[in-house]
Amino acid sequence: VERAVSDLKPLRLGIAGLGTVGGGLIGLVAGSGPLSRIATISGVSARSRGRSREVDISSFAWFDDPVALAAHPDVDVFVELMGGSDGPARLAVEAALRAGKSVVTANKALLAEHGAALQAQAAAHGAQLRWEAAVAGGIPVVKALREGLSANAISAVCGVLNGTCNYILTEMDRTGRAFGDVLADAQRLGYAEADPTLDVSGADAGHKLALLAAVAFSGAPDFGAVCLEGIEAITPTDLESARFLGYRIKLLAKATRGAGGIALQSVRPTLIHQDHPIARIDGPLNAVVIDAEPVGRLTLTGRGAGAGPTASAVAADILDLAHGDTRPVFAGPGSYGPDSWPAGADAGTQAEPHSTGPLSRFYVRLRVADRPGVIARITDLLARHQLSIESFLQKPPEAMADSVPIILTTQPCHETDLRAAIAEFAGVDAVIGTALVMPLEL
Amino acid sequence: VERAVSDLKPLRLGIAGLGTVGGGLIGLVAGSGPLSRIATISGVSARSRGRSREVDISSFAWFDDPVALAAHPDVDVFVELMGGSDGPARLAVEAALRAGKSVVTANKALLAEHGAALQAQAAAHGAQLRWEAAVAGGIPVVKALREGLSANAISAVCGVLNGTCNYILTEMDRTGRAFGDVLADAQRLGYAEADPTLDVSGADAGHKLALLAAVAFSGAPDFGAVCLEGIEAITPTDLESARFLGYRIKLLAKATRGAGGIALQSVRPTLIHQDHPIARIDGPLNAVVIDAEPVGRLTLTGRGAGAGPTASAVAADILDLAHGDTRPVFAGPGSYGPDSWPAGADAGTQAEPHSTGPLSRFYVRLRVADRPGVIARITDLLARHQLSIESFLQKPPEAMADSVPIILTTQPCHETDLRAAIAEFAGVDAVIGTALVMPLEL
Repeated sequence: VERAVSDLKPLRLGIAGLGTVGGGLIGLVAGSGPLSRIATISGVSARSRGRSREVDISSFAWFDDPVALAAHPDVDVFVELMGGSDGPARLAVEAALRAGKSVVTANKALLAEHGAALQAQAAAHGAQLRWEAAVAGGIPVVKALREGLSANAISAVCGVLNGTCNYILTEMDRTGRAFGDVLADAQRLGYAEADPTLDVSGADAGHKLALLAAVAFSGAPDFGAVCLEGIEAITPTDLESARFLGYRIKLLAKATRGAGGIALQSVRPTLIHQDHPIARIDGPLNAVVIDAEPVGRLTLTGRGAGAGPTASAVAADILDLAHGDTRPVFAGPGSYGPDSWPAGADAGTQAEPHSTGPLSRFYVRLRVADRPGVIARITDLLARHQLSIESFLQKPPEAMADSVPIILTTQPCHETDLRAAIAEFAGVDAVIGTALVMPLEL
Repeated sequence: VERAVSDLKPLRLGIAGLGTVGGGLIGLVAGSGPLSRIATISGVSARSRGRSREVDISSFAWFDDPVALAAHPDVDVFVELMGGSDGPARLAVEAALRAGKSVVTANKALLAEHGAALQAQAAAHGAQLRWEAAVAGGIPVVKALREGLSANAISAVCGVLNGTCNYILTEMDRTGRAFGDVLADAQRLGYAEADPTLDVSGADAGHKLALLAAVAFSGAPDFGAVCLEGIEAITPTDLESARFLGYRIKLLAKATRGAGGIALQSVRPTLIHQDHPIARIDGPLNAVVIDAEPVGRLTLTGRGAGAGPTASAVAADILDLAHGDTRPVFAGPGSYGPDSWPAGADAGTQAEPHSTGPLSRFYVRLRVADRPGVIARITDLLARHQLSIESFLQKPPEAMADSVPIILTTQPCHETDLRAAIAEFAGVDAVIGTALVMPLEL
């Protein structure tokens, strides 16, 4: 047993970013586990040297400039935990790769937006760039996709990748309270940032999805191609109606393989059938569901953020480097190139704009004036667009309200056709505001 | 992308065992995916050369003797898919290791019973022995434990590891039919073997658990230490009562870390609380739940058997070998030896016989004559043993029956104390037969 670790090459770390994850990592190096036996810390860097921290950094060399730390000859592995898609994080990672050093990072924004360039730099300098911690925290999903399923053709990857949104939706569902109220509480509790935009807009989940799609489908990440929709418009009525229909609402990140290996990527609130493994992922948990051939469906669930899970993932990457493992930055099972997609497997649909997309059932919520004939006009309008209604909910109006929400779900249709019909709702004078549209996932 | 695979060292496989998994693997080598680019087949071996198979083996060199194939100079990786803990499988694996060749196997019985000896042989000859396919089919749980959680201290691993038992229990629960009926159907459908003993006795799940415990806690497998209990005694009444109480019954395989790194290992029917991730693993699915520090709880779910999932795992091991990855046979995160268990983590209880064990709630079902005073005598007997009842169920007797089942659950207690009380039930003349005892898992 001892042999396994003691035979490994010791690694000297340079750690940039000393927040909760950096603190967790220093704890693992200072502890009694495997990381303590193969890693030492050559130097650290952060915005503020003097800030009070849970871990004692006084024994480590201090670097004001993370770029200097990244390129320092005493550093074998540069660990980037600063965050941010540009600025010091990017400069420091590039400096480390140029120096041929291995880099381990938890920075999803950096990789999602500059992954292709960093992949090229790593290849040019023979450096390893590892990022297990960037997606789904402690869940070793990158390893599962890239190594565990290396002989598989992946057809789809979906999941709940943002714990803040999942916590907010779970709390709204549990308590019936409105988005703004629950968000304010989440901010007070430290579950949401002071500026929550990156989370609630879906951008953070989109960064992670672009990375998963890159490793699943062997491309480089293409964050610009991810269709993003946030959770701000979801109301307690939506959550209650979804539950009545046998669904839960989750911010679902989903990438499917199309012909030519191009993925359709979207992050949007979605009605998930209660029997789907994602439906019961509540609170701050993350989950990833992988559909692949020949393995079938695989579901991985765990904690998506926090010092412990993220430090666990960073440490695993460091231990893999100590074992001498090498893997390309993104190419995964995805060594299935466009020409080698198995003939027998469903190659999905041609990549096409989000607005067309594949056939799906949809949930539509709109608000209408509470007067006779409105339902008839709406259902007639949908019928003229050849759209069939699968379920229809109208509750009695609340006291004093002169309008009511109407909820319907469609039979499978193209979203473009549905959107075309909804555009005509604007001409129905009883319809108030715009309709909310969400896909259903069975 | 192509570079990732084409740079790898080509590997020549010798495949012994040409059942469904062997056929699935040959399909992957003959296909268009990564395995087809790095692997060729030097020879095959099976019991019968002439038997009709879905794959064409006429172009491969045939070996009547798997040992000769294992040692053949044209074989880089010996793939053992014959099964059986002794006999040809063991001889062939040992021959390959002695020749310094890498071995990939799906043989849980061989590894669970002779793992320590094989580990020593692999180490002595510098050979790799990989076995991802031996546990939970397509779920890359060995990789998750050994690499993904390499910096963690694992405190417990549990799961549903036998698809046949899970299918039978799910069908009994769904239809209310008896064990024997559902088993007979499962045999007709090919979900259970003609001789189902290995599955329904818990031995197959026990083999797998011993392997997971070895990698989680860094020992060698110790199948003899696994406490085994099968599902034969479970009745539709048990499943119905469990559901009423908010639980499902699963054949739970569970290993916990005790002081000194020794694991408590058991496979037994267990009431799983409906909110536990295992509770909803139905039909032939497998699932593994890992509790570890600092990552927290991780749940992996997928298909546990069959040609596709198992071939996927075998192929991943072969691709890891092609990448030059090396890992000890069993040591995992487990490089946490006895002395390095984190002081802050819960080190569990001292290893002790199954009959004592840690505190747990228990389910007890007994059959009693339907006459006055019986309940009073039983509850009094439990009270004299200081055992508190948490719930108690007695349904009206069925027509014509002169006895009724009584179900109770206890508050947390030691199983030894409960067993001592139950032993005294034999002296209560109204009690018929022996009581069934199952632990509760929250």
